Amino acid sequence: MASARARRKGAAELLGPAPLVVVSERPFNAESPYSQQLGLLTPVDRFYVRSHFGLNQAPGAEDWRLEVSGAVQQPLSLSLADLLGLPARSLIATLECAGNGRRYLEPPVPGEQWALGAVSTAEWAGVSLSEVLARAGIAAGALEVLFAGVDRGPSPVDGATIRFERSLPLEQALHPDVLLAYAMNGAPLTADHGAPLRLVVPGWYGMASVKWLCSIEVLRAPFRGVFQADRYVYDFGDGRPVEPVTSMRVRALIAQPTPGARIPASGAQVRGWVWSGAAPIAGVEVSDDGGETWVQAELGARVSPYAWCAWQYRWRPSRPGAHTLLARARDASGAAQPLAPDWNRLGYGNNAVQRVEVQVGE
Amino acid sequence: MASARARRKGAAELLGPAPLVVVSERPFNAESPYSQQLGLLTPVDRFYVRSHFGLNQAPGAEDWRLEVSGAVQQPLSLSLADLLGLPARSLIATLECAGNGRRYLEPPVPGEQWALGAVSTAEWAGVSLSEVLARAGIAAGALEVLFAGVDRGPSPVDGATIRFERSLPLEQALHPDVLLAYAMNGAPLTADHGAPLRLVVPGWYGMASVKWLCSIEVLRAPFRGVFQADRYVYDFGDGRPVEPVTSMRVRALIAQPTPGARIPASGAQVRGWVWSGAAPIAGVEVSDDGGETWVQAELGARVSPYAWCAWQYRWRPSRPGAHTLLARARDASGAAQPLAPDWNRLGYGNNAVQRVEVQVGE
Repeated sequence: MASARARRKGAAELLGPAPLVVVSERPFNAESPYSQQLGLLTPVDRFYVRSHFGLNQAPGAEDWRLEVSGAVQQPLSLSLADLLGLPARSLIATLECAGNGRRYLEPPVPGEQWALGAVSTAEWAGVSLSEVLARAGIAAGALEVLFAGVDRGPSPVDGATIRFERSLPLEQALHPDVLLAYAMNGAPLTADHGAPLRLVVPGWYGMASVKWLCSIEVLRAPFRGVFQADRYVYDFGDGRPVEPVTSMRVRALIAQPTPGARIPASGAQVRGWVWSGAAPIAGVEVSDDGGETWVQAELGARVSPYAWCAWQYRWRPSRPGAHTLLARARDASGAAQPLAPDWNRLGYGNNAVQRVEVQVGE
Repeated sequence: MASARARRKGAAELLGPAPLVVVSERPFNAESPYSQQLGLLTPVDRFYVRSHFGLNQAPGAEDWRLEVSGAVQQPLSLSLADLLGLPARSLIATLECAGNGRRYLEPPVPGEQWALGAVSTAEWAGVSLSEVLARAGIAAGALEVLFAGVDRGPSPVDGATIRFERSLPLEQALHPDVLLAYAMNGAPLTADHGAPLRLVVPGWYGMASVKWLCSIEVLRAPFRGVFQADRYVYDFGDGRPVEPVTSMRVRALIAQPTPGARIPASGAQVRGWVWSGAAPIAGVEVSDDGGETWVQAELGARVSPYAWCAWQYRWRPSRPGAHTLLARARDASGAAQPLAPDWNRLGYGNNAVQRVEVQVGE
């Protein structure tokens, strides 16, 4: 059913070790080996890692507490066991770094030079943030909720030591699917992924899902911290207004075949993952001629509104030689992936169509 | 929100190590630590293990092949890479050993003495069995499909060396959700779980999901092997006809609190998992008085038709002292858990209501 060469290659590629692809050692940033993704879920040790500061040192669960303060009727100080005693909730969600694909921007922009592997999917289990906020009681005049992790380091703006802090509009924070997560794929969070507790904001780029969470503060005025107002904004540099980075833009990833693959003349299964934080996926189209013509791929089951879904297409090449495969997704909001990046100064949200060059044998 | 004692206990119980509970070393059989289950998915290293023979030695993926033979138009010999090149499919499914709960039968019956942890949930990824059967072509007169693993050992009937073999009716085998699975929770199968390939028959007790699969044979006559006709049958010993063990009976498991737990007078979250291989779950009721009165628990999201779903109930005890908590599920077929086991000679399908004794403090 495949040449001996393809057979060996497939087994080695897909069932061999699949380590993270390290982008920087300190702080530790690494991509998921998405071409070896088998099924919907990314195992924890293959899940991409994004950290802003130093080493990923998890606070000890014994000493750690979550402080809830600000515009609330009753400030709270919660242990992990307190959270474990509250009603549990879990959901499967894809997280993607807002800088995923930054490497492909021209002219280049500063920041971690992510290729396309800063995206992964897991089941997150914990407590609805809204459960905790209900226990604290939102006071009059509340506008936003601010989340801070225990991690500290130099500000990318002026070098002053700051925490990683992000806010959400109150309405977003009260959505029952915004989780205070203590587990990932059924096991307690690991240090790299924010142990003992992280926020998970499904549908949004990963910067919203604050790791090593230790403080929640309800605010009566908009938060203007570095990671809210100076970073994680679209600054197009072309007269368009600066906009905050929020939900994940629609994107299809080609997991197989991989760049440079040799494909038998009989063809191959082209497959990958597709997601959008804004709306359900409407479709994925594949091109084998660099974007001249497009055909519809088959979508897999939608297991969760927040998780990527599989797509696949049985490709039968019309001729031997070099081909460029493209996959282009659109979602029910009407958004579609652009063929060229929507360049911006900080390199966020680059969901341009991926190109994979392959060789078809005689 | 909880006493200091409960706080320490919760953190230790729920976020400490959660090793498998070994039932027998050789063959290796072990229960999942279900009281520490966090979220829907069971991590692979906490997933219950059932094996019939000797050591769980996985065949090397390089040498391994899947032979498809019998009443087919075209016998096949497939490598793992051949399977990886076919359309992929994944689903989340709960597997439960047919002997789960055998320990609680009176009078006792022979066999592995499982308590309640021989059940776990994972995402399985692979190829639909029906895809492979379509490529082989089913010949006229086909009735069943027989699956054999590479594992061999003494027959429990006469000690002769046999393989683990099970058949499915052809109609069942052609259901697109019956998978030839090469991955579990996103990673290649491990030796304990049937590497490189296992059958997954969602909704059925685990004996149908043959591990270390190496042979598929389409049959024109019913299979009568040991694990089909002598084992995995309900033999009630009371005049009722002997019946094959097929789909998982409806059952709710109480994960928290655990037996002997001390509960504060303010109460606790009672929670667990509920599943049925026969029909969607209709509800879970909880009793705190040993079964005199029942109240409805809240059901979590149903992520997959084949996966357990979470249930929970905020329990506020009416008095201090000893209480017996019970959870009773029913499904849309009308089946409900019995209060006492439906005893049978081989100890299968014991889905009697679980009882958890706890102590409520002043």
